[in-house]
Amino acid sequence: MPYNTLRYEVEDHILTLTLDRPEHLNAFTVEMAQELIDAFDRASNDDKVRVVVVTGEGKAFCAGMDLSVGGNVFGLDESQLPDMADMEACCAGDGKIDSVRDTGGLVALAIYECNKPVIAAINGAAVGIGATMTCAMDIRLASEKARIGFVFNKIGITPEACSSWFLPRIVGISQALEWVYTAEILSATDALAGGYVKAIVSPEQLLDEAYTLARRIAKHSPVAIAMSRQMMYRNAAQPHPIEAHKVDSLAIFYASQKSGKEGVAAFLEKREAVFEDRTSTDMPAFYPWWK
Amino acid sequence: MPYNTLRYEVEDHILTLTLDRPEHLNAFTVEMAQELIDAFDRASNDDKVRVVVVTGEGKAFCAGMDLSVGGNVFGLDESQLPDMADMEACCAGDGKIDSVRDTGGLVALAIYECNKPVIAAINGAAVGIGATMTCAMDIRLASEKARIGFVFNKIGITPEACSSWFLPRIVGISQALEWVYTAEILSATDALAGGYVKAIVSPEQLLDEAYTLARRIAKHSPVAIAMSRQMMYRNAAQPHPIEAHKVDSLAIFYASQKSGKEGVAAFLEKREAVFEDRTSTDMPAFYPWWK
Amino acid sequence: MPYNTLRYEVEDHILTLTLDRPEHLNAFTVEMAQELIDAFDRASNDDKVRVVVVTGEGKAFCAGMDLSVGGNVFGLDESQLPDMADMEACCAGDGKIDSVRDTGGLVALAIYECNKPVIAAINGAAVGIGATMTCAMDIRLASEKARIGFVFNKIGITPEACSSWFLPRIVGISQALEWVYTAEILSATDALAGGYVKAIVSPEQLLDEAYTLARRIAKHSPVAIAMSRQMMYRNAAQPHPIEAHKVDSLAIFYASQKSGKEGVAAFLEKREAVFEDRTSTDMPAFYPWWK
Repeated sequence: MPYNTLRYEVEDHILTLTLDRPEHLNAFTVEMAQELIDAFDRASNDDKVRVVVVTGEGKAFCAGMDLSVGGNVFGLDESQLPDMADMEACCAGDGKIDSVRDTGGLVALAIYECNKPVIAAINGAAVGIGATMTCAMDIRLASEKARIGFVFNKIGITPEACSSWFLPRIVGISQALEWVYTAEILSATDALAGGYVKAIVSPEQLLDEAYTLARRIAKHSPVAIAMSRQMMYRNAAQPHPIEAHKVDSLAIFYASQKSGKEGVAAFLEKREAVFEDRTSTDMPAFYPWWK
Repeated sequence: MPYNTLRYEVEDHILTLTLDRPEHLNAFTVEMAQELIDAFDRASNDDKVRVVVVTGEGKAFCAGMDLSVGGNVFGLDESQLPDMADMEACCAGDGKIDSVRDTGGLVALAIYECNKPVIAAINGAAVGIGATMTCAMDIRLASEKARIGFVFNKIGITPEACSSWFLPRIVGISQALEWVYTAEILSATDALAGGYVKAIVSPEQLLDEAYTLARRIAKHSPVAIAMSRQMMYRNAAQPHPIEAHKVDSLAIFYASQKSGKEGVAAFLEKREAVFEDRTSTDMPAFYPWWK
Repeated sequence: MPYNTLRYEVEDHILTLTLDRPEHLNAFTVEMAQELIDAFDRASNDDKVRVVVVTGEGKAFCAGMDLSVGGNVFGLDESQLPDMADMEACCAGDGKIDSVRDTGGLVALAIYECNKPVIAAINGAAVGIGATMTCAMDIRLASEKARIGFVFNKIGITPEACSSWFLPRIVGISQALEWVYTAEILSATDALAGGYVKAIVSPEQLLDEAYTLARRIAKHSPVAIAMSRQMMYRNAAQPHPIEAHKVDSLAIFYASQKSGKEGVAAFLEKREAVFEDRTSTDMPAFYPWWK
């Protein structure tokens, strides 16, 4: 599938997903949302991909929802919008929301479900959905030119893309609230001080730094990494560590009988392990365990 | 309603709630608890209020439960206390706790339910309930003279005011445990290093700094802010981001049709937005969504 | 019960649990797991113990699962392992995992249930289960020589010992994911920067520093401390602060009628409190409230 708004480029087991509407500062559209969802679903079981790096073409990372294409902050054409009375009836009733789905949230959920680690290389402005989509990514690196804005409250709307779930897990509840309430543009330095990004690097070195990190991950077992990713997000959100224990017990047993055999052999032989397992075919029968 | 233990003063959309028993270092009493609950409930739908700043009159913020008024650490008159056998029977039975309610917790729950952001301006000693009540506030600023003490274990009791729910969300579980176990008085510097306060300022500048922060928030849509506040606390505590997505979808759609219209128009016209929506009348039909 | 792999030594209300297989860098075995579980269960109601300090004999803290004793990364003898088909059938069926239990997780759960605060004094290499067992401890101090490795993904397996539940609570989700994905050995400085350890001290001073911290805790009421410990972990993991309030109300009422009487008296008399309550006999009837 060719994309109109993205580039999907794989090299050395690293997928670079580039938001590619530089003439619009990579502003987010419904098409971009659909293509991002497709790309994360595809990467999830694309065995050539072991780590995903997301960045933006040109000056910006993603300048937010594109307000210039007849859309609105919700990302829908006016003609697609349910009217308010219908929506309120729906909410008051059975709570179905199929006709009203936050577009950014669908992208965040696709990232959440992905079998591969996701690194954001924030090269410039990341505003609105451009900021919140990075909350659902695992690790963030910022160029010195990065500017991050959870600007929703400033334009009279609320944060979205499941950022209320992700952001407090990254920076704590108080920092998350402050950034959302004030809705101002954060510098890379602000983002680092608040614990949102791992490091600040020069614009020229941003992708290299992201790839260096990605390579440290890409050499490990894809199946073990995929299980670990879901374990960290899902088990931590459970009320008791016993829930982690149940999954751990299955996961480490399974892995010890599969990729762990190569891992331990390599360790004992003092050589680099060579993992050839695949998320497309080698996930255990109990995965996804939460279903 | 005039208060005996508080001052409730609104200016420029900012409510300053001042704990006002300076001759007792603003020590906490059952009357103060009742007045705080009333004040947060009132502020929640007082359309003149967009942000709440809480501080203490005189030298202290709040020196803890007033042990000098015939009360006890529980904040009840001895005559009101159930006897231990009754309490244990109650606990062993249907778990009703109506006869035994932590007074500080009732204040924390009122803060939690409030529709307005809450900033603590900790001007001096904040000890016991004086410390834990600030856990339920969104952002904390400390005067250089602030002293914060989760002193419960030192006097043979346990933390309260829902602080076991709030404090780990702010500073992480290990820092929270250390402060509770050691039960010592923290300096402003300790509190900053642990991530409990946003900044340390001079005593003279504390309120100005709090108001500067409050003004950055007060210009935004009160309805969007109120929804955002509850989304951040409630969605983050859910086991899966889909729960955030459900709320996000409704909230951002609603807001985009209401205050978002002014917000986007102002953005496109490069002017300051003027939001006139009110929490008293303009919350969406699905709010509160958790009921 | 004498231990083969541990030393259990109590002085001044502080239990030092020393992993004691220095000739094997204190590598973890099934026997060590059983002895650790026994030791934490014992400490929980050993009234001579008010705080637990865990450290390693010799150069290492714990170099991970002992792969040299006919075992495997799972810690089971090959003869004890269920076969994969049985395990997958079990998982697909009623989800019982009794035949497949992560050994490290059983230790983590024993630490979690313990009535006493637990301080890790990480004196050297803490790798694999040697690292994850410290996630379940409340506070960590690192010697300059500490090296901490969540190395699972590097050897083709997944993290265990409930670390997916504990680690994000300590350092946030993004730092946790990065350490797990990269699976590299962290220096004490890395661990401090990430918020995993409270402080770095010289090897010579590590135990002294741990004991200094332990003594600040050991003088407080053991019953209040035991309740506080469980309140912090369990209440924070609930979806709403009302759950904390229910427990707070009972806990502070109970404590105020027991150890709180001595605590308040000592405070008013400006003397050190002397707490003689015991976790073996004085826990309230509602404890454990979660059962």
